[in-house]
Amino acid sequence: MENSNEIIDELKQNGCKIIQEKNGFKFGIDAVLLVWFCSESIRNNQSLVDLCTGTGIIPLLLSSSSRASHISALEIQDCYADMAQRSVVLNQLQEKIEVLHGDLKNIQNYYKKHSVENVTCNPPYMICDHGKQNPEDKKAIARFEVMCTLEDVVRAADYLLKPGGAFFMIHKPFRLPEIFSVFEKYHIEPKRMQLVLSHADEEPAMVLIEGRKNAGRRLKIEKPLVVYNPDGTYTQGINKIYGIN
Amino acid sequence: MENSNEIIDELKQNGCKIIQEKNGFKFGIDAVLLVWFCSESIRNNQSLVDLCTGTGIIPLLLSSSSRASHISALEIQDCYADMAQRSVVLNQLQEKIEVLHGDLKNIQNYYKKHSVENVTCNPPYMICDHGKQNPEDKKAIARFEVMCTLEDVVRAADYLLKPGGAFFMIHKPFRLPEIFSVFEKYHIEPKRMQLVLSHADEEPAMVLIEGRKNAGRRLKIEKPLVVYNPDGTYTQGINKIYGIN
Repeated sequence: MENSNEIIDELKQNGCKIIQEKNGFKFGIDAVLLVWFCSESIRNNQSLVDLCTGTGIIPLLLSSSSRASHISALEIQDCYADMAQRSVVLNQLQEKIEVLHGDLKNIQNYYKKHSVENVTCNPPYMICDHGKQNPEDKKAIARFEVMCTLEDVVRAADYLLKPGGAFFMIHKPFRLPEIFSVFEKYHIEPKRMQLVLSHADEEPAMVLIEGRKNAGRRLKIEKPLVVYNPDGTYTQGINKIYGIN
Repeated sequence: MENSNEIIDELKQNGCKIIQEKNGFKFGIDAVLLVWFCSESIRNNQSLVDLCTGTGIIPLLLSSSSRASHISALEIQDCYADMAQRSVVLNQLQEKIEVLHGDLKNIQNYYKKHSVENVTCNPPYMICDHGKQNPEDKKAIARFEVMCTLEDVVRAADYLLKPGGAFFMIHKPFRLPEIFSVFEKYHIEPKRMQLVLSHADEEPAMVLIEGRKNAGRRLKIEKPLVVYNPDGTYTQGINKIYGIN
């Protein structure tokens, strides 16, 4: 099932197996936090599209943590889309998760307009410094806006979502004004937000955002989520999210 | 100096005296936090305008905590502008602080365009529910957007500020998307933000924001500021801000 340059990891949260590269891009805490942030909000029998799915960590976790009836995962990089598809088969989740290899800038080629209740995305965070990132570098494509920008992602979410549908994203706090601005441009209203701090006395490292298509104005900011205790161990909240008792 | 319905309180931070109503609107922690948030950023000999100054708490504190050479305070309610002016005289700060009675919607009547380096504002937070707030109620005018909206405030700041000038505001977190949207409309870029939590395990109650006129995009989010310890006493950080040892 896995190639020689790959390993299979087991997810503590639900026992799913995920194929990843030994020396390539591996899923991080950001994907895990995004799943935790959105799972409860996804209602029974709703559909979900995960953009920039990479090796499929978000669909694999959501298949058990959420009530979504069908999850479609879109990934631009052939190798990752292929790994995600093999992980789906490995877990016998073909009826619940479909993996598409495609470019979200051409979202209309893959999905019907305004057809989906939920969209998730753990996009590349970093603004692309033209020339510095190698467009052949698979890890760079996952981290920098080489193949898609924040606006490309939000435009795709707007295309996909039904009115009232939810868009869940994790991103970098320093880009918050731009995030809100692009959300507004595409009629996605920020409704819930949570800052993630590595340590309680540090500046936030990530921000979780839930937007709702065509919703009214009123943002709920949750209490900050702290990842590490002062001694470097995970906080109780994070252990719970990872399924560690 | 004070009328029979007024009292004089002494500010621990700098020994200034402030005249307030016995049973009316009194300054709160929000004004104190805004002063703390902006003081260090105000450079030597810079000018500052405080919008919605009320009884003048922000200019009175900034007169010693910041390096501003001249502070102008604008207040729409005659009675509060009068109290602020009498407090300035009481503290012999007439050379540093001027108080103007006027409406920020007519800002051009009082100040030159693009003439100021810093603007502060602790505005009314709450969206006005037409008919519910009595326009004669002085406290309601201080709390609800009866006489000015968020956009009126930001438009006035934009009028006042030189390019690169700073706008410091405290507001309610639930209005953050609207705040960023209005900032963008008036070319004030959010550059620094800090959430204020009553208790560490609660949702934020206030947000401090620094915007810069015509600045580039990149927001620094400070670590959250917590007001109370679990036992109900002020945290060390807040005691320091209040000048309590």
